[in-house]
Order: sequence, then C-alpha cells, then structure tokens
Amino acid sequence: MEDRERMSRLVSLLRRRGLVLPSFEIYGGVSGLVDYGPVGASIKRRVVDAWIGHWGSITNVVEIDSPTITPEPVLVASGHVGEFNDKMSECISCGGAFRSDHLVAEFHEAPDTLSSSELDDLIEREGVRCPSCDAFDWKKPMPMNLMFQTSIGAMGGSRTAFLRPETAQGMFMLFPALYRHFRQKLPFGAMQTGRGYRNEISPRQGMIRLREFNMAELEYFIDPDDPPIDDLSKWPDRVCMIPDPDGPHPGEFEMSFKEAFESGIVKHPTVAWFLAMTMEFLEFVGIDRAKVRFRQHAGSEMAHYASDCWDCELMGEHGWVEVVGIANRTCHDLESHEEHSKSSLLRAWRTYEKPVKEKSEVIKPVGSVIGPTFRERAGEVSSALSKLQATPSTFPFELELPDGTIVHIGEDMVNIAVEDSIVSGEYFTPHVIEPAFGIDRIIWHILDHNYMEVDKEGEGYTILSLKPEIAPFDLVVLPLFDKDGMDKMARDILTRINSLRGIIAEIDTSRSIGRRYARADEIGIPWAVTIDHQSLEDNTVTVRRRDDQRQVRTDLDGLIGGLKSGSLSSMF
Amino acid sequence: MEDRERMSRLVSLLRRRGLVLPSFEIYGGVSGLVDYGPVGASIKRRVVDAWIGHWGSITNVVEIDSPTITPEPVLVASGHVGEFNDKMSECISCGGAFRSDHLVAEFHEAPDTLSSSELDDLIEREGVRCPSCDAFDWKKPMPMNLMFQTSIGAMGGSRTAFLRPETAQGMFMLFPALYRHFRQKLPFGAMQTGRGYRNEISPRQGMIRLREFNMAELEYFIDPDDPPIDDLSKWPDRVCMIPDPDGPHPGEFEMSFKEAFESGIVKHPTVAWFLAMTMEFLEFVGIDRAKVRFRQHAGSEMAHYASDCWDCELMGEHGWVEVVGIANRTCHDLESHEEHSKSSLLRAWRTYEKPVKEKSEVIKPVGSVIGPTFRERAGEVSSALSKLQATPSTFPFELELPDGTIVHIGEDMVNIAVEDSIVSGEYFTPHVIEPAFGIDRIIWHILDHNYMEVDKEGEGYTILSLKPEIAPFDLVVLPLFDKDGMDKMARDILTRINSLRGIIAEIDTSRSIGRRYARADEIGIPWAVTIDHQSLEDNTVTVRRRDDQRQVRTDLDGLIGGLKSGSLSSMF
Repeated sequence: MEDRERMSRLVSLLRRRGLVLPSFEIYGGVSGLVDYGPVGASIKRRVVDAWIGHWGSITNVVEIDSPTITPEPVLVASGHVGEFNDKMSECISCGGAFRSDHLVAEFHEAPDTLSSSELDDLIEREGVRCPSCDAFDWKKPMPMNLMFQTSIGAMGGSRTAFLRPETAQGMFMLFPALYRHFRQKLPFGAMQTGRGYRNEISPRQGMIRLREFNMAELEYFIDPDDPPIDDLSKWPDRVCMIPDPDGPHPGEFEMSFKEAFESGIVKHPTVAWFLAMTMEFLEFVGIDRAKVRFRQHAGSEMAHYASDCWDCELMGEHGWVEVVGIANRTCHDLESHEEHSKSSLLRAWRTYEKPVKEKSEVIKPVGSVIGPTFRERAGEVSSALSKLQATPSTFPFELELPDGTIVHIGEDMVNIAVEDSIVSGEYFTPHVIEPAFGIDRIIWHILDHNYMEVDKEGEGYTILSLKPEIAPFDLVVLPLFDKDGMDKMARDILTRINSLRGIIAEIDTSRSIGRRYARADEIGIPWAVTIDHQSLEDNTVTVRRRDDQRQVRTDLDGLIGGLKSGSLSSMF
Repeated sequence: MEDRERMSRLVSLLRRRGLVLPSFEIYGGVSGLVDYGPVGASIKRRVVDAWIGHWGSITNVVEIDSPTITPEPVLVASGHVGEFNDKMSECISCGGAFRSDHLVAEFHEAPDTLSSSELDDLIEREGVRCPSCDAFDWKKPMPMNLMFQTSIGAMGGSRTAFLRPETAQGMFMLFPALYRHFRQKLPFGAMQTGRGYRNEISPRQGMIRLREFNMAELEYFIDPDDPPIDDLSKWPDRVCMIPDPDGPHPGEFEMSFKEAFESGIVKHPTVAWFLAMTMEFLEFVGIDRAKVRFRQHAGSEMAHYASDCWDCELMGEHGWVEVVGIANRTCHDLESHEEHSKSSLLRAWRTYEKPVKEKSEVIKPVGSVIGPTFRERAGEVSSALSKLQATPSTFPFELELPDGTIVHIGEDMVNIAVEDSIVSGEYFTPHVIEPAFGIDRIIWHILDHNYMEVDKEGEGYTILSLKPEIAPFDLVVLPLFDKDGMDKMARDILTRINSLRGIIAEIDTSRSIGRRYARADEIGIPWAVTIDHQSLEDNTVTVRRRDDQRQVRTDLDGLIGGLKSGSLSSMF
C-alpha cells in the first residue's frame, strides 16, 4: 500500500531540522527558490566536492568557473533566446498566467509536445477554466522565454543579458584556453558546478523544479573520427535500461553498460563510458541502484543537435525524475559559436597519418596586363587575386579590394595554374559528449532513498542513513550533562576534532541523551560520542553507530585515529 | 625603482596559462566579468575550501546556502533599493554614461563623498569634457542603483527581484532556522560563499572591480549585553593598524590585536577576535603579512548602521585595496527585517540571572456592563480588551474587534488593576559581527604576492610560489619522453595519484623537460615528478621541488606516502 504521507513527513523533517527550507519565508516566500540550511548546506558542499573529485580523478578533465550573467549574443548562438520556451496561457478575466500544458494535463498524454494552436484547440474543446477565478476567457497560448533577463551597465551603454540557463556555455567560451591548456591534444574535458536559472511560470514539486538550481556539467571534447573507447568491463553489474521505443530495441532491459554498448543500444562508446561513470557516482553518494534507470530519448524528443541522448532517472516520492542527462551534442555548439562570433579558435587540428598530396587550382595575376590597367592600385589587385579561395567560373568577374572598391577582372588578367601541395592535416570542429547533473534533484533523491522510518520499541523512529562521505557532520559530541567538567571535556574534544582537515563535528547539549541521539539519527550523523562521568576519570568515551545504534567504549586517541583514517567501524 | 611593466606581465601570464581570463572574449568580452580557467578554478576552489575550513573549525559556525535571486521587499528592508547607488553623468551629445566621481577625480580628493549637486557644480566649474566624444554637454548627475534587476514569473504574476549585492541577507533570512539549530543559544554564526553582483557603470582594474564576484561572508549573532570575549594572546605578532583619523588615536601603528583591543582602538572584543582570525586566514592562503594593514573607518565613512568598521587592505599592483570588511552591524539588519516583514521570529531570548517581579497595569472587563451593552458580541469585546498591550489614557476609546468592527468603550466598562508578575527573561534583537571577504580580490593578491621574477642563468624566469594548500595542482607528472614505456608508466602513476582523496595531479608531455619545468613553476605547481629510463628499470622517479629547484630520487611508494602525509619536503 502506498504511503501518501511519507513525502510530507520527509519534507517536514527537512524544514524542521534545517536541511532544505523555502527561501525568504518571513516575506511570504517565493516559489521555486529554496535555501540549504545549517544541515543541508554541508551535505550539498560534500555532494559537489564528491562530484568534482569523481571527474577530477580522470587525468584529462579540469575545472573552470565562469559568470552566471551571460550577454545575449552567446545565448542567441546557443539557441536559448529562440527556443528556451514554455507555452503560457493568460486568463483575460483575472490576469493569471499558467503553463498551457498544465491546463490540459488531464486531456493529453504528452501535452508538452503540443504546438500553441494544438494547445489552444484543446483548451477550447475541453472548456478548461481558470484555476484562479474559474473564468473561461483565455488569450491564445504564447511561448514565454524561460530565461531571467537583466541588463549590464547603464542607459545608453547598457546591454541585454540573461542569467545562464546552463553552465555548459561557459565551457564552450573557454575552448581556446582549454585547447591551449591541454597542448592542442584531444580528448579533454572541462567541468563546472554552479547556479543555473529557469524562470518557471508556476513551479511546483519542491526541489525538483526550481527557478534557481545547482548544476554540475562536464563537456568532453573529442575527435569524432577517433573517439575514446574505454574499458566497460570494470562495471559488470546490471542496471535498468530503456532504449528508444521507436528504435530497434524497444522495451526495458536489465543489462550491463558493456552489453548495452555491444548490442548497439548505446550508440557511442564515450557515451557508454559516461553512463557507467554516472552510475558509479550516484552509488557513491548513496543513491539506491534499484531505483535507477537509464532512458534513451526517442528521436522525436531529442534536442535538435544531439545524436544520442540518455536520461538517468531516479525513483522517489515524485515518481521517476530525470536527474542527469547524457548527450552527444556533436559539433553543434562549437559550430554555432563559430558562425555567430566569427572566431577561428573553436577548432582542433588533426594530423593525417600520412601527409596528403593535393592538386589545386591557383590564380596567378598577369602583371603585364594588371599593371597598366590599374596603375597605382595594381599591387592591391594582385594581392586580392592571390587571396581568392576559389577559381572564378566566368569572366569578367567582380573583385572586392580591402577598402570596398569593386574592380572587374578580365580573362586576360590571370593565368589559372594547377599546383601540387602537401597537406599534413586539417582543422575540424570537435564533438562534445556532455553529462549534465541536477544537483538539487540528486540531493532530494539521496534524502528520499535514505529516509528510513523504523519501529523502535513500539514507536516510530526516523533514521537518515546517509553515507558518511556526504553526511552533514561526521560526528556529534554529547556531554551527558552540560556541567561537572563534562561540558569542558566535550568542548575540548570538539575543538580537537574540528581541527582535523575535512572533518566537521558539532555539539549538542539540549535535553535528554535519548532525544539527542534521535535528532542525530534524523539528520544522518553517522557517529555520536558521549562524554559521561567515567570519561572524566579514565579519558574514555562512548562511540555510538547510527545505523545499528550499537555502542563501544574507546579512549580518545582511538577515536581521533579512527576518525582520521575513516575506520571507526572496525571498533565494532 | 617602480616596475610599471610587472602588472602587465602578471596579467598576461594569468591569461596565457589559463588562471584568470576575460569572459566571453570570442564575442568581444564584457568588462567586469572574468573566468577562472583550467588553472585558476582549482586555486579558487581551494581558497574557498580553506575559508570554509577556517571558520568551520569554530564549533558554533555553520554553512548555509541561499539563492542569488532576491525579491524586492528583502532589499528594501536592507536599504539596498534606496541607498546602493553611484552617481552617474550622461553625455547628451553621445549618450555615453560615466561615473560622475570618476569625471572629477583629478579635481577633488574624495569625489565619491560628493552629493549630486556638488558633483554637478564641479563638472560645470572645471568644464569636464566627455571622455568619449569630447563634448561639454552633460545631464545632471543622477543616482543609479547598482543592482542587477530582473523579474520572477510571467506577466500579471511577475515580481521585481534583484541579484543579491551581498550574501549576508541570506543569513538574516535564515535566522529562525539557525536559532532553532543552535537550540536557542547565542552566540552562533552562519557563513556562506557564492556570487555577489554589482552593476558597475564602468568597471576597471581587472579582478578588483567586478560586476559578478565571489564573496565569503559570516554573520556572527551575539547578545550585545554578553559579547563573546576570546583570548587574543594566541596572536602575539604585530600588524599595521590605522585607527580612525578623527578618533583619539590618529596615526599608523604596528601592534598586536591584543594591544589594539586593550588600548581601546578596537572597540569591541568580538571584532578584535575577527580581525585576528582574518589575519590568520590570509597568511594561511599565502598573503604576505608585510603587505597587510587594518584600517578603521572614520565616522563619516562608516555605513549608517555600523558602530565599528575595519577594512583589511592589501598592497599590490593596484595599491592598497580593501579585501575584507569587518563590521559590527549591531541590531540594524534584524530590526529592519522585523519592521518590514512583521515577523516575530528575529529575536532571541535572554534569561535573567534572577527572575524580576514587575508591577503592571491590567485591564479587566466589567461583565455586568459589557454584557447588556454588546449582547451577543460581549465575549469578543472582553477578549479584545484583555489583549490590549497598553492601558488607554482617555475614555471613551475606540476598540477594534478581530473582524474590523469598531466599538466604543466607556470608563464604566473596565477596571484598571495593578498586578504583580514574575518575569524570567526577555526577547531582544541579537547584534551581528560580520567579516565579509572578497574572494577574487584575495586571489588577485595571492597571485601578486607570490609572483616572483628571478634571474636564472642570465635570463628572466618566473615562479608562482603558491602555498601547496592552494596550488592549482599538487603535482605534475613528466615522462622524459612520451614513448618507450615512459608514457605508460607516467599515466599509471598519474591515475594512482589522482585516486588519492583531495590530490590533483596533471601530466605534461609537451616539448623539452626544461620548458615543462618552467611552465609548472609559472603556474605554481609545488612538485614535479619525472619518469626517465632509470624509472623503467628500478621503479624510482625524480621529485623536483619548485621553490629551490632541487631534485631527489625516490621510489614510488615513497612518493605516494609523502603526498598522502604532506611530507614530501622531508626528503630534501
């Protein structure tokens, strides 16, 4: 039987204990914005650090960090100014604005695929009423751009800009610096974590659909003729895969990534490798493998530029939710930026295995004709002729000089010669494989998958069984009483532990020891250390393990040593 | 003799080697926006981590993380909507916009303190011409708000919002959650790192004046009647202090923080402690103590709400630059948010040492008069009378009932009694001490202070002597030749090193070993490991130390062990 109350109990815990809270609540809040509180921010930092560490262990991936404010031309080239839209319906009666696809959700299976006029027809036909004022008086659905717009500078000198809808464009902008950093050798990758923005019309679903969210993206630049092929046999375990339903393998399969690639379901070797690495990361931060599936986009659903797209979806209280997208973006982004910016720095060089001899036509100016014809401009004309990329097919033809002057070139003014040249390689636009992670959605599912409601002595009891690597605190120090020397000893131990690099401990002196254990279990602290009367006598403390609530007594050096080496468990 | 070229060589190195670069350069760039490239982003992450670790080691400070998009009412309460301005002059002839104080910089010592009309007079009197078109045809200077404005949601339902000018407001918004987290016990602190925004009219000075920047702020909430007093004797070293020139101690002094507090120069004990902790952090990340000074704001310069403000300034190629502000913001922020939001959750409770007996006037409804007068509403009237905070001074008076009805209360309807009550404590607004760090400015000065141009065999040679804790890579692996097995061995070692938690290594196979050492020295990598023919035979490698360029030979286990324990230096 489904437990419809579990989600509200979880959300209430997150708020009460300071993990994730609505933002600006004392001013009534803003939907789609959340805060990570005193417990959640630490979890978030550790998840992000784990992500950076995971990809940083690959020897050709580096981190970069670019602004969130992005000038308009960049987002015209990326397609976001033109295409990053939701359709919106405005109620003439009350002025309320709603996503058109939400209005018709109960009348269509995939309302987000409908065009404006299809949405309009459906709203008319079904007589959909305004959720605010119950009127049936709609303007036609209109696309609304989902970027937050702002403006850089003042008045006459100001420029339109947007808050970035993805961090990826920052990596494309830095391609020239990255290519130099990696000494002109592909493949290499750049990653970035930080804020992304999406001005949702009516965000719902808590941490799943935010207006300001935390992303982590990696752009891996490869030579499409020589894609990196990694060994997939390191990951033999099977996982749920759902190939493109319109492709040759419709259905749902349990298979390893190696099987998925070898059977042709995953089309690109580097995409297969990123799928496997993504699964490894998710398990590292505490996602339940049984609640993971990889779903291939159908042709109709794929972004226009992508040739193979996968969503990694997680099951939780919101149903299946996309948390990672892994896409072969091909040369789309770099080519589009080359076209819009006219930059010549967005290509890579590929050296042929053997230099190639090519015959090509070249134009040679005939000085004895050009000289008398163009007199003092003869030099400019000859130079402009030599720079022509293609041989003209008809004579006379028009030639533009650097200052814009047009001159007419007759057949007698040039000789066409065929020459041999040696070509050792060529410039090409690298392809890009991108895994894009939604950090907030992943954190939501970490919390969901590790939220355990158990029965303890006949009463409900909550444990957040977070992995120690991403727990908000490594340890809580609990003086049995906040007096009699136990208070001072607890604070001395706390100071000593907090001076260890990368270890965060907190102290709790409130109320009964049982309630303090319960609070520590609720926010996922893996270890609790209790200082009691005996501690004052023999310098020993009790170490309690969250997951089985067992306790052992140890001396202080044993505790500190175990914390440093991450081996406290070996005491049990 | 001053070397005017040093800054341009440093800036050029930062760009060439991918530390810090202008953003969106292929589209012509946007002034005031920079990227941290493949080398710089790693330095930035480590500086931020060091900052979090530094304050996180205090046992009552936690991290939080709030949105950059901030709704207008929050920034009305904080004063930013009204007061976060620069004066701007617009040229009528060409439409160019300029900071008015910049236009008159050569005619006044402190042009940023002038009012609009004073600026206007000075521009008129001096006949200042437009820097763009040389016209003398100005509109009057106007205040321009420096926040980036945007709008949340669509059409009728949209709300004005701004990108946060500081991260501090996020901590004030979360005060209720923090107070709960710390079990209603002061003092405690909350810290946050992330983006801040300031829409400069015409940003200059590279990383010093950015439109989007990285901040790190801590708000420390205290009881002003019982401020935390920490031991300052831990920091005996002297530092340059410049007290308020209008105060009792004008001048410049070398003194310890303890001396500065005990002599009354630093007014608040908690402020003194934050000054000392700030100095400790700056030295940890590699700031040269000889280029640090602490300058107290003059009364005229201080923000309206602050009672003791200090700037920590660093000397570098841009002269003395403020990088940290340490302010006693008193109760200003929380009080203002209480007033604007009407929230009752922005106070703390202070228990008196002894409960206090107080006499107070209370109003008692006289039922025998109220009953017949108000009949079925008599209960409501009595209840509203009991809730009155103050005794009315004249009769009859108007009383508002919960539904808005006004009734008139005559003298015969109430008795005024004087009663004893026991009061055990009171609610009050905590005070806030805030250290606010400009991370980009600090990184600029780390780079500046550690950029060494030395003479090596008669040629210029560059070393970035970064502290290992914040170096972009811990180590570079250099196969002498990228073949003959050295290539594979180098990559195996690299993979092994990168799997160590928190260690980042890179490989360099380009060109001669000398040029590769030079590049590693230029970007501040403290250790280089060379794999040569001998390595293939006996599994040993050469370890080279950046700072003295000495080399020792060690086996692989020695290398890995030394890296793990941070003790590679002990080999030398």
